[in-house]
Amino acid sequence: MDERLKKQLDFSLLIDQEKNIMRRTHLSGYGRAENDAEHAWHMAIMAYLLREYANEPVDIGKVMLMCLIHDIVEIEAGDTYAYDQENLKTQKMREDAAKEKIFSVLPEDQKQELIALFDEFEAYETSEAKFAKAMDNLQPLLLNHSNGGRDWRLHEVDADQVYGRQGKTVLGSEKLFEVVDQILKEHIKAGDIKPTPDHQG
Amino acid sequence: MDERLKKQLDFSLLIDQEKNIMRRTHLSGYGRAENDAEHAWHMAIMAYLLREYANEPVDIGKVMLMCLIHDIVEIEAGDTYAYDQENLKTQKMREDAAKEKIFSVLPEDQKQELIALFDEFEAYETSEAKFAKAMDNLQPLLLNHSNGGRDWRLHEVDADQVYGRQGKTVLGSEKLFEVVDQILKEHIKAGDIKPTPDHQG
Repeated sequence: MDERLKKQLDFSLLIDQEKNIMRRTHLSGYGRAENDAEHAWHMAIMAYLLREYANEPVDIGKVMLMCLIHDIVEIEAGDTYAYDQENLKTQKMREDAAKEKIFSVLPEDQKQELIALFDEFEAYETSEAKFAKAMDNLQPLLLNHSNGGRDWRLHEVDADQVYGRQGKTVLGSEKLFEVVDQILKEHIKAGDIKPTPDHQG
Repeated sequence: MDERLKKQLDFSLLIDQEKNIMRRTHLSGYGRAENDAEHAWHMAIMAYLLREYANEPVDIGKVMLMCLIHDIVEIEAGDTYAYDQENLKTQKMREDAAKEKIFSVLPEDQKQELIALFDEFEAYETSEAKFAKAMDNLQPLLLNHSNGGRDWRLHEVDADQVYGRQGKTVLGSEKLFEVVDQILKEHIKAGDIKPTPDHQG
């Protein structure tokens, strides 16, 4: 087998490990916790189906690929819970080291391509990155909502924290943010999310 | 929320169930069994990274979407193991009923679009379908190979069966089939796959 193909297959096998990176979100029906690979798959399909709601035109193939690969670094860096303030401080440093190590398994051109795509997602500036991030927020919200907000209660999340994250969805899709806002208000009112002065539900 | 968006979000929640459809293949390191959502995610990334080996030019966005959605019907129809002759007989009938039921949750235009894409994948005629099917075969082979062929031994699979499935990879990618063929011969020789008159390893 030639060297290029060998590297591509080595990387393909390596990313299998993403299926063991567990998240805080639970599957619908409050099943087991979800893993990163499932989350990425779910986001990519949602991005395709909901693309008509993106604020700006998007290259949907690029959005889907961004969704699929955006958590690969967590194979090395681990999942950082969206509301874990301590680990959020070191997240970028850990993920930068991880991305160099993991994507180096690929041939050089594909390494550079995937790092650029990951960086674009993280920078949150292009229309594709903003829409992909909206999916990164909407997908777990949909599951959490279907589970009656149980994960928010469990982690004692407050409204400022949730809006700090979910509020960014408006940059990717104003239409989808309307739904997000409605769902969050409902859960603040029900006491699943702790109210804060700015967000009384 | 308008009716169209409600249907799209209902469908998005419904497909969460694909994460509970278990396959026979085990994760690398002979971990737990893999589920359909993980398999689809893995295939879609492999398709992107290996697209240069497709026999014919492919619309890679379409291939990736095909990979992502090709097993959604199994939420209703269940997974059919590639070497389970009894269940393979009823697979098409079960999956046709399932696809009508599941995709009907979507708005009509998206229902028709996803059914057409699923049918295209199953028909195995376009360059995209042939390459996506090659990934459907290569992804579990890669895991099984990394696990020393243990799943083949467990299910007492023979060479005719494996080549009956994996042999189709040549239609999507001659280059990748060379690797597949080499791996299969190795496992026939090692006794992980039972030899048959045509395939002595």
